[in-house]
Parts: sequence; C-alpha cells; structure tokens
Amino acid sequence: MMQRLARHLPCLEWGKQYNKAAAAKDSLAALIVTLMLIPQSLAYAMLAGLQPVAGLYASILPLIAYTLFGTSRTLAVGPVAVVSLMTAAALGPLFAYGSAAYAGAALLLAMMSGAILLAMAVLRLGFLANFLSHPVISGFISASGILIAIGQLKHILGISVTGESAAQLLQGLIQGLPETHMPTLTIGTTSLVFLFLVRSRLGRWLQGLGMAPRTAGTLTKVGPVVALLLAIAAVSGFQLAATGVRVVGEVPKGLPSLSLPPLDLALIIQLLPAAVLISLVGFVESVSVAQTLAAKRRERIEPNQELVALGGANIAAALSGGFPVTGGFARSVVNFDAGAQTPLAGALTAAGIGLTVLFFTPLFHNLPHAVLAATIIVAVLSLVDLTALTRTWRYSRQDAAAMAATMLGVLLIGVETGIIMGVGLSLLLFLWRTSQPHIAVVGQLPGSEHFRNIERFAVVQSPRVLSVRVDESLYFPNARFLEDRIAELLGQYPHAEHLVLMCPGVNLIDASALESLEAISARLHTAGVQLHLSEVKGPVMDRLRRTDFLEHFGGQVFISQYEALLALDSQTTRHALERQRCNGTSMGDCK
Amino acid sequence: MMQRLARHLPCLEWGKQYNKAAAAKDSLAALIVTLMLIPQSLAYAMLAGLQPVAGLYASILPLIAYTLFGTSRTLAVGPVAVVSLMTAAALGPLFAYGSAAYAGAALLLAMMSGAILLAMAVLRLGFLANFLSHPVISGFISASGILIAIGQLKHILGISVTGESAAQLLQGLIQGLPETHMPTLTIGTTSLVFLFLVRSRLGRWLQGLGMAPRTAGTLTKVGPVVALLLAIAAVSGFQLAATGVRVVGEVPKGLPSLSLPPLDLALIIQLLPAAVLISLVGFVESVSVAQTLAAKRRERIEPNQELVALGGANIAAALSGGFPVTGGFARSVVNFDAGAQTPLAGALTAAGIGLTVLFFTPLFHNLPHAVLAATIIVAVLSLVDLTALTRTWRYSRQDAAAMAATMLGVLLIGVETGIIMGVGLSLLLFLWRTSQPHIAVVGQLPGSEHFRNIERFAVVQSPRVLSVRVDESLYFPNARFLEDRIAELLGQYPHAEHLVLMCPGVNLIDASALESLEAISARLHTAGVQLHLSEVKGPVMDRLRRTDFLEHFGGQVFISQYEALLALDSQTTRHALERQRCNGTSMGDCK
Repeated sequence: MMQRLARHLPCLEWGKQYNKAAAAKDSLAALIVTLMLIPQSLAYAMLAGLQPVAGLYASILPLIAYTLFGTSRTLAVGPVAVVSLMTAAALGPLFAYGSAAYAGAALLLAMMSGAILLAMAVLRLGFLANFLSHPVISGFISASGILIAIGQLKHILGISVTGESAAQLLQGLIQGLPETHMPTLTIGTTSLVFLFLVRSRLGRWLQGLGMAPRTAGTLTKVGPVVALLLAIAAVSGFQLAATGVRVVGEVPKGLPSLSLPPLDLALIIQLLPAAVLISLVGFVESVSVAQTLAAKRRERIEPNQELVALGGANIAAALSGGFPVTGGFARSVVNFDAGAQTPLAGALTAAGIGLTVLFFTPLFHNLPHAVLAATIIVAVLSLVDLTALTRTWRYSRQDAAAMAATMLGVLLIGVETGIIMGVGLSLLLFLWRTSQPHIAVVGQLPGSEHFRNIERFAVVQSPRVLSVRVDESLYFPNARFLEDRIAELLGQYPHAEHLVLMCPGVNLIDASALESLEAISARLHTAGVQLHLSEVKGPVMDRLRRTDFLEHFGGQVFISQYEALLALDSQTTRHALERQRCNGTSMGDCK
Repeated sequence: MMQRLARHLPCLEWGKQYNKAAAAKDSLAALIVTLMLIPQSLAYAMLAGLQPVAGLYASILPLIAYTLFGTSRTLAVGPVAVVSLMTAAALGPLFAYGSAAYAGAALLLAMMSGAILLAMAVLRLGFLANFLSHPVISGFISASGILIAIGQLKHILGISVTGESAAQLLQGLIQGLPETHMPTLTIGTTSLVFLFLVRSRLGRWLQGLGMAPRTAGTLTKVGPVVALLLAIAAVSGFQLAATGVRVVGEVPKGLPSLSLPPLDLALIIQLLPAAVLISLVGFVESVSVAQTLAAKRRERIEPNQELVALGGANIAAALSGGFPVTGGFARSVVNFDAGAQTPLAGALTAAGIGLTVLFFTPLFHNLPHAVLAATIIVAVLSLVDLTALTRTWRYSRQDAAAMAATMLGVLLIGVETGIIMGVGLSLLLFLWRTSQPHIAVVGQLPGSEHFRNIERFAVVQSPRVLSVRVDESLYFPNARFLEDRIAELLGQYPHAEHLVLMCPGVNLIDASALESLEAISARLHTAGVQLHLSEVKGPVMDRLRRTDFLEHFGGQVFISQYEALLALDSQTTRHALERQRCNGTSMGDCK
C-alpha cells in the first residue's frame, strides 16, 4: 500500500532523505529560475493572448503539483513558448483577445489537457506520443519558433497586426510599417540587441574576468530580468507611456483565487483536438528534457508517472487562473546547472513567483510590451534549427518529407494543421515503406547448408522447390504485397511443385497476414504447388498452433531451410552439399 | 512504345490470340452472367437509392471499360451490394431518395471514385489499400450484409421505414409492423423461400438427376431471374399492383445517353471522404477476388493496372447514368466456373444488358420491389461470417478488437464511421504493439560464442560490459521506448562501463531512432558509459555512414557480439569460452 502510494507520490521518496545541503542547493537554483521565469511567464502569457498576470498564476500552483507528483528532479514546469502559441492558435479564432471568455476558455483548455494527460496515465496510453516522430516534433518546433518570432515583431514596431499564418502576419507587418511607433521601436530594438549580446557575449566576457564558466553561464540567464527593469525605469523616467508606448498596465495584486473553469460541453468538443495536441506535444517535450537531464546524474524518470504529474500541473493551472503548462527546455537546463537537487526547487520557485504576485506587481505597470516581445524572440529563435532539415534529408528522404510537411503546414496554414499533416505523412510513408518488404528468392550456397539471395550469390536452386525468404514481420501493411509477390513468382517458376517460405526475420504474423497465407496456400494448391514454412520463430509458431492453419495448409514446417530441401528434393540438395567448396576467386560470394 | 501501350491496354495482348474456341466459351459465360446480373443490377440500384434502370446502365459501359483495361480474365465488374450500400449512406443524408439531385450526386460519386482510383494508379498509391486490414474488411462486409438485409425487410413487409443505423431501422420495422401489406408480404416471403431453396437445394437435386456438378451449380445462379419472371407474371395476372404492391413501374427504354455529372465544388468536397472509402473498399474487394481466380489458372493480375481499369469503369459509369461499381465476388466466380476465357466475356455481358435495355424494359413494369429485396437479402446473407470474429479472437485479440469495432461502428453509427473506427483502431493497436519491442539483456553461453537472453538461459555476463539485444527495427513507434528501457537498465547495472547494442533483428533505423540513439549515446556518456553496436546489417550500416553518428558516438561497430566482448572485456569472455561445454542435462539451454 505504502509502496503504491510512493509510486504515485514520488515526493515521499526523496522527501525522506531531504537535508540541509540539498535545501541550500535547491534554494539557489530556485532563486535563479525565479528571476528567469518572471519575464518569461509574463511574455508567454502575452503570446498566449492572455493578461500577463496569467503567466505568473500559471507559475505557482502547477509547479507545486509537479513537485508532489513528478519523477524528474530537475524539470522546471510552467508556461512555455510552443504550448502558449498552440493555446493562442486554438482560442484566437473563437474569442476576442483579452476578453473574459478567452481567459475562461484558456482555463478550460488547461483543464482538458490535464484530464487527457491523466487519462493517458490511467489507460497506459503514453505510447500515443510516439505518433509524434522526431522529425515531426523537430519541424514543428522550428516552424513554431519562426511563426512566434514573426508574430512578435508587431510589438517591436508598435503596430497592430492580425492573422494566423506566417504569410498573413508578414503582409500585415509590411502594410503596418508606415505606422511604426518610433519610441516603441527604440525600446524594442535596444532590448533585442541587449538580449542577444547578453546571450552570445556576456558569458565569455565574465569568464574573461575570471568567473567560473558555470556561474557565468547562469548569470547570463538573468539578462531578461535586467532588461525588464531597465525598460521599466526608462518608461517611468521619460513618461513614455504617454507617447503611446504600449505597457502592461494595471496588474492585479495578490494570489490567484481558486475557481473551476466554465464547463461548456459544446466548447469542450470544439477544443478537443487542440487539447489532445497540446497534451501530446507538451508531454513529448517535457519527457525528452527530463530524460536527458536525469541521465546526466544516472537518475531515472518514469514516463507514466510524468503523465500524472503534468496532468496535475495543468489541472492546477486551470483552477488558479493560468493556462496550459509543461516542462520547459531552457529553464530546466538552468535549474539543473544551478544545482537543483530535488523537485522542491520547483516549489521554492513557486514561492518566489508567489512573493512577486503579492508584492511586486505594481512594478510591472510600466513594463512595455516591446521588451516582452524581445524576450520571446530571443528565446524562440534558439529553438529554430533549419539545418536539421538537410541533415535529415541526407539520412532519410521520407523523414525529411514529414519534417518539411510539418514546417510548411505550421507556417502556411496553422500549428494544428501542420502537426496533423506531419503525423499523417509520417504514417503514410511508414506504411508505404513497410508495405514492400524485402522478399528474396534464395538458393543453396554450394558446399554448405546456407541459403542466400540468388541475385547476389552463386547458388544452386532446386528445379522442383522454390525457396523464398521474407525479411520482415508479416502484418497488414505488407500482407497483400506478399500475395502479389508470390503470385508473380508462381508465373516465373512454372515447374515448381513446392514453395518454402523461409521465416527467420518474421517476428509476427497478424490476422491479416494469416488470411493472406491461407489465400496463398489455397491459390498455390489450385495451381498444383504445396506451401511449406521453415525457420519459424517460437512465439510465431505458438500463435499459429492456436489456429487450424497448420492442419489445413497441407505443408510442413521445417526447422531449417536445409532440412526442407533435404525432405522435398534430396537429390539436388545433397549434390549441392557435396560440391567442392568455392575456390579462392569466388570466396567473396560464399560469405 | 508498343510495350508501354500493351501494359496499359492488356486487351491488345489477349486480343492477338483470340480464337473461336475462346469466343464460344466467353459467350456461354456471358449469357449466364447476364441472366444473373439483370435482377442483381436492378436490386442494387434500388439499394443505392436509385431508379432500377440505373443498375442496368451501370452494367454496360463500365464492363466495356474493364474489358479494355483490366488484367483479370474473369473478374465481373458492375454494381455490388457493399458499394451500393456505401453510395446510399453517402447520399441519403444529403438528398431525397429518387430525386434528380440524388441521381446526379451518384454520378458525381462514381466520377470521383474513378478519378481517385486513376490518381492512385498514377501516384502508385495502391498500398493505401493496406490500411484496410483483413479483420477490418471482413468485419465491414459482415456488418454491411446484416445492415443491408435489415434495410430490405421494409420491402418484404411493404411498409416504409427511414433511418441509417441498424437500431433505427429495426425500430422503424417494429413500429410499422401493424401496417404490413399482406399481398407484398406473400410475394416477399415466397421469393425468399424460393431463392433460399434454389441456393441450398437445387444444385444437389439436379446432380441427383445426373447433371454434372458444375452445370448444376451454374444453373442455380439463374434462380433469381426465374423468381423475377414468376413474380412479374403473378403481379400482371392477378392485377396485384392495384392492391398496393409496389412495383418498379415505367422503366425507360433505350441505351443511356452520355453526359457529364454535375461538377459542384462544394458537393465534391462534401463527398470526398465517401468517395475515398468507396474507392479503397471497391479496390480491395475486387483485387482479392481477381487474385484468387487468377491463381487457379496460374494467371497473373497487375494490381496497379487494376486501379486503372476500375477507375475507367467508374468514370464510364459516371458518364452513362450509373453509379459506383467494382468487381463483384459472386458474379466473378460464376463467370469463372462458366468457363470465361478472356475479359471479352465482360463485353459480351454488357451487350446482353444492352439488349435488355433496348428491348425488355417494358417487362419490368410489374416487377415488385419485394422480389428485388429478396434477391438482395439472399445475396448479402451469404457474405455474413460472424464466426470470423471468434476465429480471429482466438488468434489475436488486437485484430479481433479492430474487427469488432468496425462491425459495431457500421451497425450502430454508419458505414463510413465504422470503417474509420476500424482503421483507426488497427493503427493504434499496431502502434501500441510495435511501440514495445522485445529488448533482452544477453550473456555468453558458456563454452560458445553465442549470446542468449539472461532470463531464459544460464549465461555468463561481463561485469563491465552490458549486452542488449533488440528484436525489432528501430523506428518512431519504438524509438522512445528504447530510450526509456536503456535508462532503466543503466540504473540496474551501475558498474557497467560499456553498453553493446546487438542489432541482428534491426532492418531499419529511421531518423527518429537515429536521434534516440544519439540521445542515448550522449546520456550514457554523461553517466560514464560508452555505447557500441554489433551485428548491424549492411543496408542499415550504409545509411548510418551517411551521417556523422558513427564519428561522434565514440564507440565501435563490431561484426559480432563475441568480437565486441573480446575487445571490451577479453578476460571474462575467454574464461566463458574455455569453460567446458554444458553437460547432457542442460543441453536444452545450449541451442
């Protein structure tokens, strides 16, 4: 009982060994992550189309939920760029940005995402995340990064632009260019340059001053909070809000109140596809970050329990005025590098954000949108990896096609369409690939008991016995291909009396393939040819024994292809075995 | 050039050798199929919700198109039950039965289906039919048969019932029962009994009289046309139409006029999913019948050319007042048994139907709907095979689940939903199955160079080298599973310094799996463990060489697991090899 509880509440485990040393390390990590999270949470809330304070709310209770249920010791949960973009894409077409209905729907989306993740945990459906292959996820993140960056340029220019696709956004930007608001542009570009310099140069410069690389690297992460403070000071000092620089404005003070999101069935059905995709993308991203960090310290994460923890975090976000959250890449790495020892660092970060909400929100009144946009742009551009496309193309054209389809879909149509196009194409190409397995006619290598492809080796074929090797499991994607291929072979070998299917590479025969084998056997019969099997693996054989196939197909199952030939055409076989072994010049063919 | 033409016009090939003997056989087969096709074409048009004459129209030009382009010598193309049902299911919710708009949409559906089949031929997308696994197709056909039979009962009872699902139809039948029209019921049940007796007894009875089994079997196939004629005689003789027995009524005389279907873009988009499913189902059914019959005479069919031929047949149907057609099971078998030698038998059948349309349509005025319904019921009930469900369950629960989902979907919701549910569940279960491949920790069999699963055999493990064998190709469905599993093993073997992945069963490493291998390698590095590979197949190795993985992962690729152990921990390995071979009692473990 206690063990089961411990499995679902990993905090009971690490909590037992918690000590002062770990507390000191966790506190330091939490401080740094808090400073990084403040600008990010405000910015990602804006990206999601919500009031900035929603980002802070989404960084309190969800982190505590993850501390209780999570198995990664260093994953930093909260608002992240890609999920925020997906939230905006789902809600933008339905509600006006900034409206109460929009904010309510964001809560509902977080609630649904949480429920879906929990359901996946209970039903053990984590494997669904496998639908999102690496090329699809990689293409999705790169294209989302580009789309987010383009979408934020309006805040840098101080103009208003609507639209969802990259083309619409670019068109809007070009049309709006003449109305560029100069003070805003100044703040925006200054922030961009500052943040890029901090990211690319500050670490090296601090190391040049003799600082340890790790400390220097960590310090660069608080660059955005410095930019934030400088921008607030500038706006306040020069009264820039009066000139038309858009600022965050009144931010409510105090902790979020707890409440249920509006449960509207029609809206739930409408949001379901988006909620499923948000859950899957969030889960995949989070688990791969957690896995990478855990391995560095030979720790383990439990993917199914991660579903529980992320589900809990999203439900917590839904109850406390947030929006969908997941484990973020950048903050988790900072948390790890800063020395976080346990998930308690997450709870301490939540406390830091809680203090911010309680005491510092008046500070954000004069925070310009432009600096938040700059924070987002610098963060997401580091996610864009266009060289992945050429690298993947070199390795596998099919995978590259799936990646390209995802990217084009995201940029030209929308995030959901893009991911669905990528997944659909992955499945299609996968089916196409496995629908035509390698099937070789084999013959006996003279002087041996081995059988090899007749097209590659100088082998002996029996005139009466056709030996065919299948290099793939037999299942529905290729069941009919096997039928077609054998029908073809039947025409090419009119004198064959036996056909032996050699199955060393067959790990599975599903019901479709079994029907195909029955059809093949029956068709061979009517043509006067008997089907046999050889080298069938144990588990496959166990399954075949549960059917009447073995009794009805009339042939035999041989332990090896050599045994089969010996039984069906001993003359040719023995003759081939007795032939002298290949001489030196053709040794290459005998391997 | 001529060869390419011949490939796309197989009639040029068989036409060259055409002679009198073949012509005599083809003519006889055509006569019998024509007599079978007349009642079926009228009945299936009614099932599709169209005027009965549309069935005759769909049995002229489409058959000639197939004669020109088809590769099967005996496939009988035309209206079939399942595709007619799918046509009704697609159009019923959009238009009133019997309206001109309905008939126009049926033409459009045939045109789209033809275009889709041709596109599949050009783009070599025939493999898409693999999505329809055997269990899904089998469940779909059985459930469709039941649904069709229930739907026809209203014609036997002489009442009117609307509804799409089996439940709605049954409810309507029960409510309408009191209004049963007695004369109609008499004709209906008499026809049913007569047709069942002809099908089950007539053959044996004729054989008892000394007739050859084949001739007797063929004669039973003209039972429906006899029922038709008897019913027409009864209705005409007793003036039954005046009592309220619903009859076919005026059937236009003469060949169909050629015209384009209405090309309405909005309607095209609306009908697209139905058209895709009709194309796929029609193709799968047709090819499997053609394949079976071709094998009996050691002939071959060319699946891609079949797409062209079926596409042509559907476009011909669309241009000449028909509806979607495909190759039918029952009529093809009769055609084969009656001795058809070439596709010309199909053209001759078309001529027979042409003569019928030209001269005999007035005959059908008094043909009662009830007898057509009886024809349909007897035909489709032979397609229902409920025992397939238990047979499949015994063999594979996953396949049985997909079959059951298809059947329930078809019966409770609708034909399209049913097939989509089945395909969706097949893919999910398939992904689930391959997402957790067999991964075994292996050790050296004492006294040999073989490595076997440590859980099944008494083997020697090196303390420093962890040997892991993967029994599946590595691709996106299982890439993350491998990551999780290796992370788990890392925790179990804290003293390992090397991890050798043994890949004899790996036929493919896709881009997702490559990324996973890179992640695994990097994570192992940070934990102080080096990854190596062994027994990698040639094609997989060729592909890996196109990436920088082999240079960066830091490990080696060994020809065999034994070589790997020898290089990484020669002491343990040699010691294990030198141990005396297992004695008699444990020989079983040494294989």
